[in-house]
Amino acid sequence: MKNIAYYNGKTAPIEEMMVPMNDRACYFGDGVYDATIAVNHVPMHFDDHIDRIYRSAKLIDIEIPMEKEEMKQMLQGLVDQVEGDSLFVYWQVTRGVGMRNHPYRGVDGAPSIWAWVRPNGMRNVYGAYKCITMEDTRFLHCNIKTINLLPAVIANQRAEEAGCDETIFHRGERVTECSHSNVHILKDGVLHTAPCDNLILPGIARAHILKICDELGITVVEEPFTMDELMAADEVFFSSSSALTCRVKEIDGKAVGMKDEKTFARIRDAYQALVKEECGMTV
Amino acid sequence: MKNIAYYNGKTAPIEEMMVPMNDRACYFGDGVYDATIAVNHVPMHFDDHIDRIYRSAKLIDIEIPMEKEEMKQMLQGLVDQVEGDSLFVYWQVTRGVGMRNHPYRGVDGAPSIWAWVRPNGMRNVYGAYKCITMEDTRFLHCNIKTINLLPAVIANQRAEEAGCDETIFHRGERVTECSHSNVHILKDGVLHTAPCDNLILPGIARAHILKICDELGITVVEEPFTMDELMAADEVFFSSSSALTCRVKEIDGKAVGMKDEKTFARIRDAYQALVKEECGMTV
Repeated sequence: MKNIAYYNGKTAPIEEMMVPMNDRACYFGDGVYDATIAVNHVPMHFDDHIDRIYRSAKLIDIEIPMEKEEMKQMLQGLVDQVEGDSLFVYWQVTRGVGMRNHPYRGVDGAPSIWAWVRPNGMRNVYGAYKCITMEDTRFLHCNIKTINLLPAVIANQRAEEAGCDETIFHRGERVTECSHSNVHILKDGVLHTAPCDNLILPGIARAHILKICDELGITVVEEPFTMDELMAADEVFFSSSSALTCRVKEIDGKAVGMKDEKTFARIRDAYQALVKEECGMTV
Repeated sequence: MKNIAYYNGKTAPIEEMMVPMNDRACYFGDGVYDATIAVNHVPMHFDDHIDRIYRSAKLIDIEIPMEKEEMKQMLQGLVDQVEGDSLFVYWQVTRGVGMRNHPYRGVDGAPSIWAWVRPNGMRNVYGAYKCITMEDTRFLHCNIKTINLLPAVIANQRAEEAGCDETIFHRGERVTECSHSNVHILKDGVLHTAPCDNLILPGIARAHILKICDELGITVVEEPFTMDELMAADEVFFSSSSALTCRVKEIDGKAVGMKDEKTFARIRDAYQALVKEECGMTV
């Protein structure tokens, strides 16, 4: 089939799936999510993503009413039903259904499990992309993958309106991350990326890039870097589980990076090799 | 009937109402809301609340596909169908339905209109309440009444776990507001309340309190005030359209306020008179 959605055990095409108005997703964004691509019907970094949603849930005091193995089986079952070599697998856990009230002792039942699988519109990892920048006005819990995403929505929309592909956030001088990816720079052969504090999501692609750098002998500095360093970098790229590694050629209309293709390409190609190793093919 | 819900023209009991999974409320909290009480089937400060949701929507680039007068009629129609002298009227506008994607150019149709009316569990305005305090870690758009409310949910839950009624937020030393109300102090007969910037919601009860103070000859200072000033105030009270004016007797386990009942009571009683004037009765 073309796509499939799941809500608490029920399945339907995404466009037809209905959920209770009183699910706390609807009033509070009271939930967490995760997402990955499935290449050749193999969800990439599956255990990493499963582990992360359990960590995210715990951080907002949601106990997922399903074992990890059961969640994996449920998601794999959906993946197996959808056609395509490259699929986007999305799932979220919300606090459940109950009459709207801020405190959650009044929630009637268990947390709700939502999921869907659909074809993935993959970015070309051999392309070069344009970004804008925006002051990062998000909350101070960016380490938790919640569905309170309105500032990310607005930021991403602004990028699109500017004919660009991503928005790089900064808090004052400090670069944090993008609207739905992490951002990294290369300078003199060294990879600089923001540390995992409450201002960035601990990206799973990011973690694999750091591991790849380690294997390739590329030094990694996990320290805050600045807007000036971003603009003066040899290479800038963003990463996510769905976009993998995307090289940046322009920020706010100014040419950036594109000065150390060799090092960037080593990382990108190692990541592509990782996809092939895990999934049996690349896309 | 006991309660009623509305979604894009369809009505049903709240517990039975279903909405499309692909409404952007569900993935992004991509919407704005408002709420008030209806006393004697008259929604309080109705025009103020209607005006505010149009302002909130505009601030996140949502054009509400309904005229203000039509929205009022729709809500009044719901209110008229529910039994009770004191009702809670809630409504929200979300960006609409579309396959999940951060930018919103892909939304299939018009923004979605959600609403419901149910009995209101009113606080006793002659009581005295307990609060806790928490660092305000919310985003920097607290002036917009969005459904990105997870930090407010957590804060309110913490209050309840502590056997308290509200959580007072502060950014460092500066008191901002509560998890779902504004907070004010009285000192030497003067009302101090945080100014309307991006750190607080411009509360409608707050605005009416300022107007009442003006009429009563009580000086108002709309300047940031500190945690120390909060703890040393003659009176502390919080306000919202559903809670009206709630006096505070304890914060973080320490006795506060309760030293200028006369001035507080003048404000509270004037607010009660306003409810009676607008709605024909108090509750």
